[in-house]
Amino acid sequence: MTDLLTRRFDTLGPYSPLFYDRPLEFVRAEGVWLTDAHGDRYLDGYNNVPHVGHAHPRVVAAIAEQAATLNIHTRYLNDRVVDYAERLLATFDDALDRIVFTNSGSESNDLAFRIATQHSGASGILISDFSYHGHTQALARVTTGLRAHEGLGPHVRTLRIPDLDGADVDGPAGAQPEDAVLDAALREVDEAIASLQAAGFGVAAVLFDSLFSTEGLNRVPEGYVRGLAERVRRAGGLVIADEVQSGFGRTGRSFWGHRNHGIVPDLVTMGKPMGNGHPLGGVALPAALLDEFGPRNMYFNTFGGNPVSAAAGLAVLDVLADERLVERAQENGRAIRAALAQLGAEHPWIGVPKGDGLFFGVEVYDRPAADAGARPDPARTKAVVEAMRHRRVLVSRIGRHDSVLKMRPPLAIEAAEVDLLLATLADALAEVGGR
Amino acid sequence: MTDLLTRRFDTLGPYSPLFYDRPLEFVRAEGVWLTDAHGDRYLDGYNNVPHVGHAHPRVVAAIAEQAATLNIHTRYLNDRVVDYAERLLATFDDALDRIVFTNSGSESNDLAFRIATQHSGASGILISDFSYHGHTQALARVTTGLRAHEGLGPHVRTLRIPDLDGADVDGPAGAQPEDAVLDAALREVDEAIASLQAAGFGVAAVLFDSLFSTEGLNRVPEGYVRGLAERVRRAGGLVIADEVQSGFGRTGRSFWGHRNHGIVPDLVTMGKPMGNGHPLGGVALPAALLDEFGPRNMYFNTFGGNPVSAAAGLAVLDVLADERLVERAQENGRAIRAALAQLGAEHPWIGVPKGDGLFFGVEVYDRPAADAGARPDPARTKAVVEAMRHRRVLVSRIGRHDSVLKMRPPLAIEAAEVDLLLATLADALAEVGGR
Repeated sequence: MTDLLTRRFDTLGPYSPLFYDRPLEFVRAEGVWLTDAHGDRYLDGYNNVPHVGHAHPRVVAAIAEQAATLNIHTRYLNDRVVDYAERLLATFDDALDRIVFTNSGSESNDLAFRIATQHSGASGILISDFSYHGHTQALARVTTGLRAHEGLGPHVRTLRIPDLDGADVDGPAGAQPEDAVLDAALREVDEAIASLQAAGFGVAAVLFDSLFSTEGLNRVPEGYVRGLAERVRRAGGLVIADEVQSGFGRTGRSFWGHRNHGIVPDLVTMGKPMGNGHPLGGVALPAALLDEFGPRNMYFNTFGGNPVSAAAGLAVLDVLADERLVERAQENGRAIRAALAQLGAEHPWIGVPKGDGLFFGVEVYDRPAADAGARPDPARTKAVVEAMRHRRVLVSRIGRHDSVLKMRPPLAIEAAEVDLLLATLADALAEVGGR
Repeated sequence: MTDLLTRRFDTLGPYSPLFYDRPLEFVRAEGVWLTDAHGDRYLDGYNNVPHVGHAHPRVVAAIAEQAATLNIHTRYLNDRVVDYAERLLATFDDALDRIVFTNSGSESNDLAFRIATQHSGASGILISDFSYHGHTQALARVTTGLRAHEGLGPHVRTLRIPDLDGADVDGPAGAQPEDAVLDAALREVDEAIASLQAAGFGVAAVLFDSLFSTEGLNRVPEGYVRGLAERVRRAGGLVIADEVQSGFGRTGRSFWGHRNHGIVPDLVTMGKPMGNGHPLGGVALPAALLDEFGPRNMYFNTFGGNPVSAAAGLAVLDVLADERLVERAQENGRAIRAALAQLGAEHPWIGVPKGDGLFFGVEVYDRPAADAGARPDPARTKAVVEAMRHRRVLVSRIGRHDSVLKMRPPLAIEAAEVDLLLATLADALAEVGGR
């Protein structure tokens, strides 16, 4: 493995991120289990790209059969891409009745910005102050949650996303009444919009992840996202929901994360789980928006909408339905929240359960969370992640302080595997807490 | 099919481009043959994405086997992506010793601009005045060969690419001595650089396709690309070779199109043929450039470098080598040029053979090409393309006037199939010329 690491550094360079102090090398996987180069099996409590399970046989067969039959761009007609478009659009509210296929979430968000900018005639963007939406140049200029040398563009205003269960060390939102948090957060939206207008940028769009996952799985006040969307629209901008994290049933409560907030976005962007690992993304939008963008731009995506990608996407939808994965995400999610609350009672240095469905976590503190002066503890969080890894369960961490345990298994996880994940977490917390 | 077209318009919208007056619907393909919904077979004289042949069994098997084994991002170690990186980098000059994998040519060119902009501290871009390099926002602002509503950015200067065999109706370059054409073209480069510097943008990069294919397969004077590259570097910019069209042996003469111009670029971008249709792209660059970019940016591409994409890319390299496809592109290309010259003698309204290897064409004129006042004739070109289609051979057209026949079959084409393509072209020219 050391040799492989050297070979990797000598070709891909040393900057491409790797997990863990000692990186893991995987050689095969199925369901929620990954096997490393030594033959050891790891429970996948982290990966959302293999959404319906690693190497799901139906997805693999769909890809293999279509690749052996035909793989071509959309300048010829092919029924496979149209079948997929119909099936996918049926999962959205009626207003979202057109789809543009891409190859990644980055391509999707970049295109959504193009459409919103042209529609509004404005360039201003509202974005969470700790988020990540992709790697193109346009997206690098709105990146707040990762290193991006470009820095924020002058046309960007950032929003602090409220968190009713937050660990804001400057004064936790959770300490205030929900109404007050909501008022303050929407006032901040008003100010950001006014600032964009005063600077002459106007408002093109707000872009957000319905789970606010990079931020740390914030629990926003009821009505926050609705209020945000209303204000942006009133200012002439569009509402872009990035469903790369929250889509395809991840939250269990809804097929699309934005529904949990009671809104219908103007543009929905998709990526990661869409093809279960096959490079596939998309932008759903109303016909009226496409009718505006289409005639003014010759948008063509060479690989976007090819029949193999469509076959992969169709198979994912089939498996989601046939294996009841969204319902199971809700059931498992409920059990997980209860178990996390129980663990919090045993380990007061972890916070309340965060997240939704099968994207969940807890804040890790340096002392009992209820103590005055309790601070998020990234080192302790890392210790838990490493302790899980040594017990062969994959999880990670997120949030502004890198102090929220990030658990996000494939939706294919079974109840017994959920139990194993939680039992292992209990052991890891006991180990780290006992140090 | 009408029904399919309606269903497509109702989901993907009517703007996504389709070929031909009556679009073709394909249902399967192998080698250089596509079968439509009626069971009719078409010879593929157009598609460069299925580079080693449609549904090549080795590529299909590689994808199917790897997808059934493991598909994961690069935050864990995996030998498949490193194997591919080593194999691919071995095809480049030694100076290009690092690779970043992406999912498309658009993602690759967008990233190359990010790297060049940060390296140079400048923002100015030189681009051909009739070219296309992708669909992201940053690339839309340098798009000159397609509709892009954004229009050129203020940081962009365009270059008229000389063509010694050109149909420039304002005074064909071919009418002047090569030296004079070269001098004038390089003077234009000097002026564009001076303009970028005077405006305070500086020079970040020049980006070009070594075949100048969108432009119409221009034959540039010997030394033009070298002179262009020298001037850009002297001004502090980087040289980006977009090998989406000219790479992977398309020209037969070299594995990489830039070699035909005697240069080693600073960045090489890849897409279309790389995975034979599987969404795969990349940027090759020197370690020194990555060492500068890497620490300042957390670049991560979720699907980029996944083992299935790597398996597809490896299989393409294997087939290219084992089936001698680059050598065959050269041999076939030579035969094609001779045949096109012969056709030109019979049909004086078509110009000299253009292009290189298996990307070739001829300009179509409204009267004998040698006549004073002969003009490119897009309607006649379209008639030839449609006449080919009715004879079940797929070709298209390109160039500033949409008047250059565009022929670019998969490299897997056999000599007998080349003969069929050329015989069909002879029939189509006879038909259209006789009207």
